[in-house]
Amino acid sequence: MKFSSAVAAGLFLLASMAQVAVAQVEREKLLSEPGVYGTFAVFKLSEDWWKVDKAARASAMAEVKGVFQKHADKIIADTYLLRGLSQRADLMLRVHAREMVHNQNFLLDVMGTALGRHLQNVETFNGITKKLNYVPSFPDELKTELKTPPPQGSPYAIVVPIQKDAEWWTLAQDERTVMMKEHTDATIAYLKTVRRKLYHASGLDDLDFITYFETARLDDFNNLVIGLLKVEENHHNKRFGEPLLLGTIRPLDEILEVLAR
Amino acid sequence: MKFSSAVAAGLFLLASMAQVAVAQVEREKLLSEPGVYGTFAVFKLSEDWWKVDKAARASAMAEVKGVFQKHADKIIADTYLLRGLSQRADLMLRVHAREMVHNQNFLLDVMGTALGRHLQNVETFNGITKKLNYVPSFPDELKTELKTPPPQGSPYAIVVPIQKDAEWWTLAQDERTVMMKEHTDATIAYLKTVRRKLYHASGLDDLDFITYFETARLDDFNNLVIGLLKVEENHHNKRFGEPLLLGTIRPLDEILEVLAR
Amino acid sequence: MKFSSAVAAGLFLLASMAQVAVAQVEREKLLSEPGVYGTFAVFKLSEDWWKVDKAARASAMAEVKGVFQKHADKIIADTYLLRGLSQRADLMLRVHAREMVHNQNFLLDVMGTALGRHLQNVETFNGITKKLNYVPSFPDELKTELKTPPPQGSPYAIVVPIQKDAEWWTLAQDERTVMMKEHTDATIAYLKTVRRKLYHASGLDDLDFITYFETARLDDFNNLVIGLLKVEENHHNKRFGEPLLLGTIRPLDEILEVLAR
Amino acid sequence: MKFSSAVAAGLFLLASMAQVAVAQVEREKLLSEPGVYGTFAVFKLSEDWWKVDKAARASAMAEVKGVFQKHADKIIADTYLLRGLSQRADLMLRVHAREMVHNQNFLLDVMGTALGRHLQNVETFNGITKKLNYVPSFPDELKTELKTPPPQGSPYAIVVPIQKDAEWWTLAQDERTVMMKEHTDATIAYLKTVRRKLYHASGLDDLDFITYFETARLDDFNNLVIGLLKVEENHHNKRFGEPLLLGTIRPLDEILEVLAR
Amino acid sequence: MKFSSAVAAGLFLLASMAQVAVAQVEREKLLSEPGVYGTFAVFKLSEDWWKVDKAARASAMAEVKGVFQKHADKIIADTYLLRGLSQRADLMLRVHAREMVHNQNFLLDVMGTALGRHLQNVETFNGITKKLNYVPSFPDELKTELKTPPPQGSPYAIVVPIQKDAEWWTLAQDERTVMMKEHTDATIAYLKTVRRKLYHASGLDDLDFITYFETARLDDFNNLVIGLLKVEENHHNKRFGEPLLLGTIRPLDEILEVLAR
Repeated sequence: MKFSSAVAAGLFLLASMAQVAVAQVEREKLLSEPGVYGTFAVFKLSEDWWKVDKAARASAMAEVKGVFQKHADKIIADTYLLRGLSQRADLMLRVHAREMVHNQNFLLDVMGTALGRHLQNVETFNGITKKLNYVPSFPDELKTELKTPPPQGSPYAIVVPIQKDAEWWTLAQDERTVMMKEHTDATIAYLKTVRRKLYHASGLDDLDFITYFETARLDDFNNLVIGLLKVEENHHNKRFGEPLLLGTIRPLDEILEVLAR
Repeated sequence: MKFSSAVAAGLFLLASMAQVAVAQVEREKLLSEPGVYGTFAVFKLSEDWWKVDKAARASAMAEVKGVFQKHADKIIADTYLLRGLSQRADLMLRVHAREMVHNQNFLLDVMGTALGRHLQNVETFNGITKKLNYVPSFPDELKTELKTPPPQGSPYAIVVPIQKDAEWWTLAQDERTVMMKEHTDATIAYLKTVRRKLYHASGLDDLDFITYFETARLDDFNNLVIGLLKVEENHHNKRFGEPLLLGTIRPLDEILEVLAR
Repeated sequence: MKFSSAVAAGLFLLASMAQVAVAQVEREKLLSEPGVYGTFAVFKLSEDWWKVDKAARASAMAEVKGVFQKHADKIIADTYLLRGLSQRADLMLRVHAREMVHNQNFLLDVMGTALGRHLQNVETFNGITKKLNYVPSFPDELKTELKTPPPQGSPYAIVVPIQKDAEWWTLAQDERTVMMKEHTDATIAYLKTVRRKLYHASGLDDLDFITYFETARLDDFNNLVIGLLKVEENHHNKRFGEPLLLGTIRPLDEILEVLAR
Repeated sequence: MKFSSAVAAGLFLLASMAQVAVAQVEREKLLSEPGVYGTFAVFKLSEDWWKVDKAARASAMAEVKGVFQKHADKIIADTYLLRGLSQRADLMLRVHAREMVHNQNFLLDVMGTALGRHLQNVETFNGITKKLNYVPSFPDELKTELKTPPPQGSPYAIVVPIQKDAEWWTLAQDERTVMMKEHTDATIAYLKTVRRKLYHASGLDDLDFITYFETARLDDFNNLVIGLLKVEENHHNKRFGEPLLLGTIRPLDEILEVLAR
Repeated sequence: MKFSSAVAAGLFLLASMAQVAVAQVEREKLLSEPGVYGTFAVFKLSEDWWKVDKAARASAMAEVKGVFQKHADKIIADTYLLRGLSQRADLMLRVHAREMVHNQNFLLDVMGTALGRHLQNVETFNGITKKLNYVPSFPDELKTELKTPPPQGSPYAIVVPIQKDAEWWTLAQDERTVMMKEHTDATIAYLKTVRRKLYHASGLDDLDFITYFETARLDDFNNLVIGLLKVEENHHNKRFGEPLLLGTIRPLDEILEVLAR
């Protein structure tokens, strides 16, 4: 008996580990492959939330975690705490899936929880990942530099929605490439301390791009952005931020704990 | 007795089928003929809704369905779920009728239901359908391509309100036609995966056009819009979206079920 | 006795008829003379209204009608239902008087009723009527055409606030007149189906003009506005609408009935 | 006894009259001297106010009057009713003092009353009075005309916040003076019917000037503003109004009575 | 016994004094060194606050003070009363720390108090301090003048967020330096009466700079800003204020007392 239950436990452990490993592989794929849909859903807690009694607030947290687990096979979701650093919002979810409707279904369930009913959805950005447009024609040296491994475990995240002007879009492709190279050159110095990810949003939102950054060095990030303001391409930003969202990357548990205090 | 009641049932069935067929014919007409008024009414549920008890929420749904049936001889209404993909809204109704006042009367009744009183009307776009302005002068080949049958049963819908600048409107008609041909050429590749419908809104709203799309391929739609950003006409878009509305096409029952959870 | 009471009744009837006739004459004057102040007050019902019990809602209606009667010697007020066709508003009042303060006093009383306390005043436009500026110098033929009698009993009304740019105002008067003639030519075809009225608003509001239209033919109105977009003057519209308000002309009773449901 | 109490009463009367006279002198000074700080505080009543019972609403009024008296030695405050003529606001206070903090302390106390807690502070404009910049270099004839005594006891007040563009500010002083003379010429015809007062706001608010007007003739004021729109200086107004505030000058008692109905 | 307790008291006093001195040194450092993160958090009290009973309001104040003490080793926080001088806000906190997350954690705790739950976070500006960019290349005389000691104990504070246009950022560094010298020259006359502090915000917020001022002379500050409007650099301000925030510097106790009345 002892033996068989130990075997069972061992098998269960192996299966769990395998499941976690599979989930991890799928997570890496969704975060790196083209053709993945990303939805950034940004929320502010309504004042009424604090009138809910503390026990109900705590049980609401379990409900939210259940929603995350329920959809874990279709979506991955990262969580951010904006409260304290942004007047617009308290909480951000970054959701990825192979179909936009999976993002919607997950968010419908989050918004349908007891907590979700007190969340005002103040911003939503929708985008899709693609192969990098400009990189293929860049010089080899630059291509090599762009392979610098990004930093891991950064505490801060910044989201900057971007919209280009009509002049940008009607430029010839090679003119845009020249400007994108200048843009890329300005970022090289920060590849080690700032991780970047790009989403295309034209037609999916009132945006052209969602740019997402992670860093431990906000001073570097400030300098990186100043570098980007100084290149020619900056003349073609009809919208840069507005809102720029700055927050800290924190696990769901910690965020929910802050909101249940 | 049995016989006569079977006949009655049969006749009733035939009558119902005829009625459905007639409704279907009328639906096709309203969706394809010029001179039809379209109203896009976009709503966000107020937070109070979730304080209504669950039974009352469920009965409110029956009431809404009753309103749809009551007006079925004057209007057709399509329903969309925006919740989760748009911070602005939860629900969109697209209403068509031969008189604008029929759209108004239907919406008055929807807004007068127990659910409707918790719906904040966050956007309304009014337009009218017309014969295509530019197509007559297009080359025959292009005209043939434009007859490509649009996709059926697409899950996603996108609404893009558009306003042109003064320079556009004061161009000579043939200059606008040249640009519209360039615009149309950019859309040819997507006729099979993206269905389109156009409403004229000048004087009926703070818009010139309401453009409506259905697709199963949001990646194609993203590329289609990028194609349109790259043509000369893009210089004359004073407003393109703002808000662009992205949602899923879902039957009323399913939407009401989501909102009654 | 019978005789004298019949005489009394007859005299009363005559007096009432005379009073109605006088009121009608005064109404015609206020709607046609220069130097009359017009205030467009636009309201949205707050959600709380629907929590008021039905009996109280019905009695609130009698109170509103009382306010209209109380001020009938100083102001005339027309009523419009925007609900269903405009996300901004449910109800519009157009008030005319020989002094702006009469408009204010009437609206103070409307807003002080049980219904008025649930009306959010979402827009107010103030203006004054004047003799037509440009017409005197127009060709005789055009002047004759402008005398086309406007349509009566139209169901739809549209209000378009307009603000001109600094370039417009600093043009020489004859340059503006040339553009106004082009503008007027574009409207001739619609004189039979679209009724117009103009208010001057510079200094009384963040506007230069309030343009008001009545029509039974929204398709004609759409074409009329497209015609106006195509004339040179359109380059000088800093603001055209924003908001354009579209509604149906309905008697107070009917509007109150819709809002008391 | 009788004699001495009569003397006391007489002395008290004299003292009161003296106090009133002193207050009147101080009022004249604050309204005419340079270096005085003006704060325009604009409020909208929240809907909740009408849920307060009538007796409490009436006693709240006495509290507000007490605040006006408490601060009477440091500030003067004028009161305006905007309700009915502006969707933005119900009530405006114009406060003057020799230190901005006196304006703040007075407004803190107003906002701390039972009424004040239901007042939403929708706009605040801060400015300072100065000697007239341009007048010294104007021709003598114009200087004489500018001494025309302004009208007294006008019922209407209009506030127009103004912001100039960078081009205006970087012009040479004599170029600005030429434009200001043209501006001033356009106002001469209205000196008898429109009273004006100017506040400088750069650095104290998101404005450059607060222009304040009183008149009994809104038709004249409309023509005056049209005259100002037609001068060259109009090209340099980055902001003119937005919001322009139109209201009636009414004593505190009357305004409080309207709000306590 | 007496002796030892006196010694203990003496030692405790010394330790406290040392602690205060250390805190004071750290405060000076955070307010003068580069690489320090500043967060300006601006709040408006929700109307509900006044429904909280007076005793609960008073105890809420003690809770807020506790939060300030809890974080005193990581952050310094200054407090400002905007109420009465700004329609947007009642209260501003300026927080400095060596890590942005310390600012966030402090603000999370403030917002989690009973008072904080009634504070609407209407604006947040994030920035970082840096060594002065332009000064090194300025003439020696100007550098000397810039060492004028700033005023102490000023009652007023003004915050002006600034965003530069793309043209500014793409100018050559020496062209920007020329304009910054002209800018600096315009400020010299006010160094004795206006204290200044600069934060860089590009990438941390929808801003490029947060400029912060303290003064007892608002008339001087008005003239200083007019001086800055008149230099060439003003052409490159895409945003200057909007909102400019004007308030009085008051200790936490006094502000909390005003809000607990």
